[in-house]
Amino acid sequence: MALLVQKYGGTSVGSVERIEAVADRVLKHKQQGDDIVVVVSAMSGETNRLIELAKSVQNTPNEREMDVLLSTGEQVTIALLSMALMKRGLLAKSYTGSQVRITTDNAHGKARIESIDTEAMQADLAEGKVLVVAGFQGADAQGNITTLGRGGSDTTGVALAAALKADECQIYTDVDGVYTTDPRVVDSARRLEKITFEEMLEMASLGSKVLQIRSVEFAGKYQVPLRVLSSFIEGEGTLITTDGDENMEQPAVSGIAFNRDEAKLTLKGVPDIPGVASKILGPVSDANIEVDMIVQNVSVDGTTDFTFTVHRNDYEKAISVLKGVAESLEAKEVISNDKIAKVSIVGVGMRSHAGVASSMFKALADESINIQLISTSEIKVSVIIDEKYMELAVRALHSAFKLNEADAGVSEA
Amino acid sequence: MALLVQKYGGTSVGSVERIEAVADRVLKHKQQGDDIVVVVSAMSGETNRLIELAKSVQNTPNEREMDVLLSTGEQVTIALLSMALMKRGLLAKSYTGSQVRITTDNAHGKARIESIDTEAMQADLAEGKVLVVAGFQGADAQGNITTLGRGGSDTTGVALAAALKADECQIYTDVDGVYTTDPRVVDSARRLEKITFEEMLEMASLGSKVLQIRSVEFAGKYQVPLRVLSSFIEGEGTLITTDGDENMEQPAVSGIAFNRDEAKLTLKGVPDIPGVASKILGPVSDANIEVDMIVQNVSVDGTTDFTFTVHRNDYEKAISVLKGVAESLEAKEVISNDKIAKVSIVGVGMRSHAGVASSMFKALADESINIQLISTSEIKVSVIIDEKYMELAVRALHSAFKLNEADAGVSEA
Repeated sequence: MALLVQKYGGTSVGSVERIEAVADRVLKHKQQGDDIVVVVSAMSGETNRLIELAKSVQNTPNEREMDVLLSTGEQVTIALLSMALMKRGLLAKSYTGSQVRITTDNAHGKARIESIDTEAMQADLAEGKVLVVAGFQGADAQGNITTLGRGGSDTTGVALAAALKADECQIYTDVDGVYTTDPRVVDSARRLEKITFEEMLEMASLGSKVLQIRSVEFAGKYQVPLRVLSSFIEGEGTLITTDGDENMEQPAVSGIAFNRDEAKLTLKGVPDIPGVASKILGPVSDANIEVDMIVQNVSVDGTTDFTFTVHRNDYEKAISVLKGVAESLEAKEVISNDKIAKVSIVGVGMRSHAGVASSMFKALADESINIQLISTSEIKVSVIIDEKYMELAVRALHSAFKLNEADAGVSEA
Repeated sequence: MALLVQKYGGTSVGSVERIEAVADRVLKHKQQGDDIVVVVSAMSGETNRLIELAKSVQNTPNEREMDVLLSTGEQVTIALLSMALMKRGLLAKSYTGSQVRITTDNAHGKARIESIDTEAMQADLAEGKVLVVAGFQGADAQGNITTLGRGGSDTTGVALAAALKADECQIYTDVDGVYTTDPRVVDSARRLEKITFEEMLEMASLGSKVLQIRSVEFAGKYQVPLRVLSSFIEGEGTLITTDGDENMEQPAVSGIAFNRDEAKLTLKGVPDIPGVASKILGPVSDANIEVDMIVQNVSVDGTTDFTFTVHRNDYEKAISVLKGVAESLEAKEVISNDKIAKVSIVGVGMRSHAGVASSMFKALADESINIQLISTSEIKVSVIIDEKYMELAVRALHSAFKLNEADAGVSEA
């Protein structure tokens, strides 16, 4: 008998019919003898409806009141799902975030969980009840309702699994697992049976939107086995876990991530003197612009070129900040480009396999794709290329690293 | 500087525009120097939408979960109204029932308030904040969300006014006060400036749907001055208060109430022996049917006729219960009629004026309206008549007791 925390997102509970389907699935697991804690989001569309309502009242809605408003979305779902479970003869009980006592800090709209009181839940589980908990929400020490920000229901699921020492946290979503890359781009993309937390983090941060980064970090930190499954298709999904029990023959590359969310800015001809990087990035950071990749080329004639990428939403703002910086540093010029894409190979196996990066560059060169920037970490290599080559690059890399084969490895690549 | 509790019902907060109008009104009162606690209902239509949603999941929705679901309605309103108040430069803060600590018993769907913690509210009022409280809801001692039943927002308003020792509890609604009778039936119906709690109770229980009976009882018990006003039209409304400060020359009749909600059942020829009334009404009460008027005629030849009225919704059920009773009591027959109306005159002045009832019967006789049943209390006389004469009877009585005149009295009637 296992204790499972199952999290269902907005699409999975988007209508009464879907809520009934979730209840059927919970019933099946319960009949198999498992204890179940269900975490649910607001019905799809509801959060946006509430945000629109708030904005029609106050342009920039007060954050405390916004949380009071938004938290009603999940509260509706927990009541309806509990009713659906009881209709099936199960004992069920709903919990709002406040009722669980998910205590958070008071950063409304992006609160962080500080503690979870499991006493009441443990007692209810012992009585055989299915618990239905509102995701995405908690309360601060003064009892003010807080929300964890969008996608916070995943965080609630993982945090509850950690606090309850659950055997697995199952995230039900509209995809049936984590793929070697996006199947819409590469036909032969393959579902991974297992992936490590680190790989999943890189995949998530690089644009594979299956899971929220925060929830993966959280699961990794507390060693909660995390499984991504489809609410609509039966299957084993993908298990995200530590790499301790992995095969020795780990393939070098587990997946290809990509996104078109970034823009690139270069400051040409800046004096190559100590402190120049912070003189450039200080004002950018002061303007609340997050920087992703940073590359500084070698110096020629005492000046250098400094390049970084930002989210495309911050592109215009970053250009205007950088123009001010260029003037004060007497830099030659600002070059910018938002028609770029980032493509990355990710895999813990890279640690023990040499030549993965060069295989990547060769595969891109074979397709005559020019690499504009390179950035590496222990388990990933990212390149910036012209966005028009993005799909081609992803397909070429997927094939070069033989990701369509179940026992893919890099040895031949 | 007064402390006012203002309660706005579902129609008054039925759209963003109406919420803005409420905020304008609160701003005006606040600028006049008053401290304000606002109690709001769910936006009109929202409660019904949630009930439908629940019923589409579970035919008879679980009562605990129903309260979790329904309480979201007011929670949306408190957030939106707080935002609208802040937009106007006011300090505002929302409170759910749980956050106030409106502690109730655990009778989900019809909970009764046991205590209200005013400490946090008092502190916020001292800081000049407008408090926006969700009506209709509380939490039991275990933290389960409860609701007070439909119309419970009035009860919340009165209870808060009592707990905070407010100067007045103002109930904003879609009518501009309490009338001598329904203006849709009698053109010359007149708004009352004052009415006593007792009169209001009789008016409310007899079908004048301006206020919930419970909230009037509550206000009377705690001597909270209650004022009914329109959210849409400026005016003084009607003040409901104790009769201590009334004019000596109290008119005998303050208003005419009426309804078509009842049905009449008669058991003919039952043995006139002790215990027969309880043998008839016991099974009726066991079937959860509430009985209003009860009349037993004098005995003829050792048998008597026993008549009572029930709500029309219970009519069919009552007939079937009564048929069983008739058999066991060997009664002659069951006669029933749901085409009846109840018309009542109400007024504390009746206590000191003789002949009010006979004036009533004369006014009805002058219109050839036959009286089927009569029931009296200290401050009201009710009759059952054929429903087709209802409007005629109301107009005749309104005129007979000169209720269209501001200093109406019964002396001439």
